[in-house]
Amino acid sequence: MPHLDPYFKQVDSLQDTFIERLREAVAIPSISSEDERRPDVVKMGEWLASQIEALGGTVEKRALGKQPGREHLDLPPCLLGRYGDDPKKPSILVYGHYDVQPAQKSDGWATDPFTLSVDEKGRMFGRGSTDDKGPVLGWLNAIEAHQKAGVDFPVNLIMCFEGMEENGSEGLDDLIAEEAKKHFKDAEVVCISDNYWLGTEKPCLTYGVRGCNYYAIEVSGPGQDLHSGVYGGVTHEPMTDLVRIMNSFVDPDGKILIEGIDELVAPLTDEEAKLYPPIAFTMQDLHESLGSSVSIHDTKEEALQHKMRYPSLSLHGIEGAFYTPGAKTVIPAKVTGKFSIRTVPNMEIDAVTHLVEKHVAAEWEKLHSKNTMKFNIVHCGKWWVEDPNHPNYTAAAKAVERVFGVKPDMTREGGSIPVTLTFQEQLGKNVLLLPMGSSTDAAHSINEKLDKRNYIEGTKLLGAYLHYVAGELRRS
Amino acid sequence: MPHLDPYFKQVDSLQDTFIERLREAVAIPSISSEDERRPDVVKMGEWLASQIEALGGTVEKRALGKQPGREHLDLPPCLLGRYGDDPKKPSILVYGHYDVQPAQKSDGWATDPFTLSVDEKGRMFGRGSTDDKGPVLGWLNAIEAHQKAGVDFPVNLIMCFEGMEENGSEGLDDLIAEEAKKHFKDAEVVCISDNYWLGTEKPCLTYGVRGCNYYAIEVSGPGQDLHSGVYGGVTHEPMTDLVRIMNSFVDPDGKILIEGIDELVAPLTDEEAKLYPPIAFTMQDLHESLGSSVSIHDTKEEALQHKMRYPSLSLHGIEGAFYTPGAKTVIPAKVTGKFSIRTVPNMEIDAVTHLVEKHVAAEWEKLHSKNTMKFNIVHCGKWWVEDPNHPNYTAAAKAVERVFGVKPDMTREGGSIPVTLTFQEQLGKNVLLLPMGSSTDAAHSINEKLDKRNYIEGTKLLGAYLHYVAGELRRS
Ligand SMILES: [Zn+2]
Ligand SMILES: [Zn+2]
Ligand SMILES: [Zn+2]
Ligand SMILES: [Zn+2]
Repeated sequence: MPHLDPYFKQVDSLQDTFIERLREAVAIPSISSEDERRPDVVKMGEWLASQIEALGGTVEKRALGKQPGREHLDLPPCLLGRYGDDPKKPSILVYGHYDVQPAQKSDGWATDPFTLSVDEKGRMFGRGSTDDKGPVLGWLNAIEAHQKAGVDFPVNLIMCFEGMEENGSEGLDDLIAEEAKKHFKDAEVVCISDNYWLGTEKPCLTYGVRGCNYYAIEVSGPGQDLHSGVYGGVTHEPMTDLVRIMNSFVDPDGKILIEGIDELVAPLTDEEAKLYPPIAFTMQDLHESLGSSVSIHDTKEEALQHKMRYPSLSLHGIEGAFYTPGAKTVIPAKVTGKFSIRTVPNMEIDAVTHLVEKHVAAEWEKLHSKNTMKFNIVHCGKWWVEDPNHPNYTAAAKAVERVFGVKPDMTREGGSIPVTLTFQEQLGKNVLLLPMGSSTDAAHSINEKLDKRNYIEGTKLLGAYLHYVAGELRRS
Repeated sequence: MPHLDPYFKQVDSLQDTFIERLREAVAIPSISSEDERRPDVVKMGEWLASQIEALGGTVEKRALGKQPGREHLDLPPCLLGRYGDDPKKPSILVYGHYDVQPAQKSDGWATDPFTLSVDEKGRMFGRGSTDDKGPVLGWLNAIEAHQKAGVDFPVNLIMCFEGMEENGSEGLDDLIAEEAKKHFKDAEVVCISDNYWLGTEKPCLTYGVRGCNYYAIEVSGPGQDLHSGVYGGVTHEPMTDLVRIMNSFVDPDGKILIEGIDELVAPLTDEEAKLYPPIAFTMQDLHESLGSSVSIHDTKEEALQHKMRYPSLSLHGIEGAFYTPGAKTVIPAKVTGKFSIRTVPNMEIDAVTHLVEKHVAAEWEKLHSKNTMKFNIVHCGKWWVEDPNHPNYTAAAKAVERVFGVKPDMTREGGSIPVTLTFQEQLGKNVLLLPMGSSTDAAHSINEKLDKRNYIEGTKLLGAYLHYVAGELRRS
């Protein structure tokens, strides 16, 4: 068991320093999706680089060129950092992002979004506090506390901090491919702290995310929108046809009705089934987050499995039809139905698309409509899953138990985090998601916050994880 | 056979005067739906009243009070006019409107919408030219031509010209009810010139319009919109349920699937069936107006019957779902599906609503969804139909044959014209729709026009109709 108490103590004594560090970071409105904030994103990258350098690390601020489609904008630099270069220590790659979602006080924030505001419950409100400035600074805090505590830093830390995560991670995939055998070549495992606990009390380790295949079906017929009084009953109506197709995909209990999809899903093994009961999650938690009790399933295990390891199909909406309040007697001439399938192992993107396309064609055939139908693939992103028994995970689990006194929940995310897959595929290394924030942090919403406990104990956790992973890697 | 040639000749010699009259009318932008144009609507009413008075008629400009819901606006006056007061002549009530749809050059008009522009083909472009200033002035032109030709005007003309038709005819129903036994009491029949021929060559008489029952189905569940990655497969989705309900209403061939609806429809009699074959209408005309060949039926008779005398059901759209271009992975929390049924004899409003509501409840039951469904009636307007063998119609048919040398098409409109029903119900008199414009006039669109031929021959028609209806009423 690593000797960590001096480090933990040092983290506690430095907590005001760490909060000041977060306050400085939050004060820079590094919104990557707003043109006029681009200089602030760059400023944030520079501030972060200087923080790393002040701790004795090295940083390359890698330019990524112009923003595709918005060529008047330079992409913010990706920080390729390193702390430590000891060949006897393992190298660990950590990823995070220093850009944030948009925020304005007038959106409904109780406090100024770019002024860190700590309340009496220790909630630290501010844009980027939990997503993802707090976790990124957690790595720096860990370095500083090791130094001040005189504890040897257990690994060589390779850092990859990007400034475009909230705006499509433009340029990142190419950079990772390019650096896989250069800056990242020594990395034995990858750790990303950019998601959230399932609840508020118990940390989790995340070993998978679902993929997403997004499709659109366009049905057109009349040359222009028609008046339903004049043409209702006379013309084939695109809406009638589209609704028929959309109706064929999924039943009200969420069962996907597209033939062959179920067969692609990896069966639930006994071993995996055992991961769900211990998870700190109740049906009441689910109903609270849904804002209502419209859950399909009655047990937490079923609900968790359907969120994490089974596919789902959602109908998002229809473009081209009447959508405002009130009444309009229109026959829309062209309507496009949008839907997507959340994919899980072993559903390959193309295999799923093939089944969906075949299903749509068969359903369309049944209609005998004179309208025209087009099936379009909007975007597809693959699922990612890791072996949760890998040393990267067993190390993190030990670190959680050491810092929080509990075994972590082993979770998968329902929504996608594309960078996990890129690191897995390009580096061929195990990737771990080790979140710092909790389910109530409201990333992407108004009043985003990070609890002081999560920030400080989370800093301890990141440091402890590095010790344990060094140990596990040495053993394996 | 009435002695009409001097009248017809006079109309021909006065055609420049009549076009000038229309030019003056079009120049007043009497847009009833735009607050800042309200003074122009009033000005238009005053101009029209002065025209009637100059011809020797009398007019009361009846104030209708404040506009409901927009109490800072006075409703424009309804003109209650009269020309002639001879107890030996029958009294005929004519209705029209002097307000117009919005129009701006920048909408795509080729010419200024409020400057009557006559091209080399005799097309007179301008907002209100065909809807409904041209037809309204037709009645005045007929009076003037009778006077100048020295032909005795055959009827007492009771006029009802409103200024809010394009904005819901606010105040009109109450006025008609109030004046049924006063200003309108002597009216033996009603004639309205405010619709269009089926094509461009052959006039029509319109003896019916379909009604419209408009409904909305609201399905709600989650407390707020959800991310489909995080909650897909876990929650009942309102879109899934709504699409299922909407899918149950109508098949791709337009057949209404709601039990009991078909039984409400008056059977097609042999006599009525004979009305369709002579109608000047081809499948090619239909395909041209649809802008494509997506007609459900293959023969013109079927198409006409489904447009005029059978019900139809259209799905208009969904409120609350994702509707813009692009991809959004949302599970909408509350969605409202809008649909309407065009009704025909003998479908009573409440009987239809009862069947629809029963159907929706039964379909909902099948879903076993935890979501909540609300069925809402948005608005309902009844169909209207007249006996086309009434003297009002036989007179009009003779007038058409006299002026145009052809028997008119006997048509019903697919869309509703609520005022027909109000006159029929409040006065208990036969109502005739006798259009002046043609199918290509683009009422409510850019480049609205009235052909010179339709205006001048239409003026002859309106005058001739008055002679024939006086004769038919005397006989009956
Ligand atoms: Zn984010
Ligand atoms: Zn993030
Ligand atoms: Zn009109
Ligand atoms: Zn109109």
